[in-house]
Amino acid sequence: MSRSPGRKQENHKISRELFVLTYGALVAQLCKEYEKDEDVNACLDRMGYSIGIRLIDDFLARSAVKKCRSYSETADMIAQVAFKMYLGVTPSVSCNSVTGNEFSLILDKNPLVDFVEELPAERASLCYCNLLCGVIRGALEMVHLAAEVSFLQDRLKGDAVTEIGITFLRKPEDRRHRRN
Amino acid sequence: MSRSPGRKQENHKISRELFVLTYGALVAQLCKEYEKDEDVNACLDRMGYSIGIRLIDDFLARSAVKKCRSYSETADMIAQVAFKMYLGVTPSVSCNSVTGNEFSLILDKNPLVDFVEELPAERASLCYCNLLCGVIRGALEMVHLAAEVSFLQDRLKGDAVTEIGITFLRKPEDRRHRRN
Repeated sequence: MSRSPGRKQENHKISRELFVLTYGALVAQLCKEYEKDEDVNACLDRMGYSIGIRLIDDFLARSAVKKCRSYSETADMIAQVAFKMYLGVTPSVSCNSVTGNEFSLILDKNPLVDFVEELPAERASLCYCNLLCGVIRGALEMVHLAAEVSFLQDRLKGDAVTEIGITFLRKPEDRRHRRN
Repeated sequence: MSRSPGRKQENHKISRELFVLTYGALVAQLCKEYEKDEDVNACLDRMGYSIGIRLIDDFLARSAVKKCRSYSETADMIAQVAFKMYLGVTPSVSCNSVTGNEFSLILDKNPLVDFVEELPAERASLCYCNLLCGVIRGALEMVHLAAEVSFLQDRLKGDAVTEIGITFLRKPEDRRHRRN
């Protein structure tokens, strides 16, 4: 199942509603399959990762962005170009650490949960949108940036905003250098 | 999980690629879960049905279309307004029966299979896009039109085009009337 040629000329936009409902069907299916929320979350993350490592080519081709020179630039690129391009929203970005490798993408509104009011009580630990974390992680890995990506806040769980945390992992040579 | 308010003012468009890859993840997951293609097809149809019965409200609100006066008008509406709105493509429509209740939507290119080259040999009976049939069936049912919807041709299976067949089922009162 590899990419077919000749997609570039086409209309790349579709209606969000069908996507949101299809994503909901996917999550519901995984909830049927896995009893534990942690297993659903892990599965969504894995699926997202597989998507991210394929989506990055599309992103680089269509965005025509230049190489980022810092983690901060990369975080801005994810928020302002990638989120805008794929989900039609632009999260705000904040840096969470003096070491400059931890960032948050903050969404006032999460387009993936348009049709979801709240999580069922028995699914309180579900990270409904965990696919997104996997997508970001997979895409970053393909441009040689190892990162941990997870939800820090979620409006579906009663938080004021939805916040995705990205921690860029220091490169091995950095670590070696600091040890020496 | 009911619809949240205030969606109408927003940008309804997202990038197709993320949807297509997410849909692919859903199909792959079902293929893991069900050994038989028929079971995957049935599951996709059921999921689509659940989506269709919710999507119809969104469609009626955003398209502001008037009530269709014939099956033919309805088929045109699905192709020219609904497909365009949700998938960004417009299938051609043909009527397949003298009784005027069988139609085909013919897609030269199916946007849902952008990243799929061909089906694996062991999945030869898979109707990869069967979700769409369920969506159409569910949406039609909500406007009191019973229909059978299925793939008649599929480019993924080597056919020249992708063809979705819609057979509108006669209303019970019609049948009674004809019997009397």
